[in-house]
Amino acid sequence: MDNCIFCMIIDGKIPSTTVYEDDDFKAIMDISPAAKGHVLVLPKKHCADLLSIDPDVASKALIVASKIANAQKKALNCDGINLLQNSGEAAWQSVFHLHIHLIPRYKDDNVQMPWTHVTYADGEAAEYAEKIKACLE
Amino acid sequence: MDNCIFCMIIDGKIPSTTVYEDDDFKAIMDISPAAKGHVLVLPKKHCADLLSIDPDVASKALIVASKIANAQKKALNCDGINLLQNSGEAAWQSVFHLHIHLIPRYKDDNVQMPWTHVTYADGEAAEYAEKIKACLE
Repeated sequence: MDNCIFCMIIDGKIPSTTVYEDDDFKAIMDISPAAKGHVLVLPKKHCADLLSIDPDVASKALIVASKIANAQKKALNCDGINLLQNSGEAAWQSVFHLHIHLIPRYKDDNVQMPWTHVTYADGEAAEYAEKIKACLE
Repeated sequence: MDNCIFCMIIDGKIPSTTVYEDDDFKAIMDISPAAKGHVLVLPKKHCADLLSIDPDVASKALIVASKIANAQKKALNCDGINLLQNSGEAAWQSVFHLHIHLIPRYKDDNVQMPWTHVTYADGEAAEYAEKIKACLE
């Protein structure tokens, strides 16, 4: 869709750090992560949110999310994962192309929602992406 | 699974307020809601979390969640919905049977995660359940 930043990322018109890609989804590193290793899963087919989710996207998204979550756990040795999908501005959605947050969690990490960003050093997001990609099965 | 509170709820051995049920899922009112109208979607087939999600559950869960979210929006006139799935104690999971939170959101509602509970009056959770059920399509 025109003027959709995530469609432009999916089309490669805006750079991103890709963790996973198949015919239907692209998963990228969140540039304002709740924790290092925070991934966004984006369906390639544009839909705004959970309310208007395309049935084909709905039937595949959690399979992809589970695959990535398992890779995060293995790569980052995290203790848990939050999967979060925000639908609507009142629910903290800021880009109106459906996306699923996968947030690695650690005991006593003090992550709270809405989160306070942590900051990657130059190149560090790519390193995290590589760690996760290396653990995809 | 023995000793799983959500399996017992699904089997009707522990009472709950049901919003939706089909062959594969039961959706109930959360008894410690982040907001009134907060629903939990439970797969009938026991799996612990996103990491170990059954592929059949994964392929159907977001279709059910979207259906319920649309009903919540229509029934409660909320401005948004958070879908949250917590995997692992470090990610706030407390019952180790996969469940998806659907939390109705309103502008300026001050919902934060982890949430401070609101409290239903006697019978009020059932009223909210009825409102949502009436809007399921």
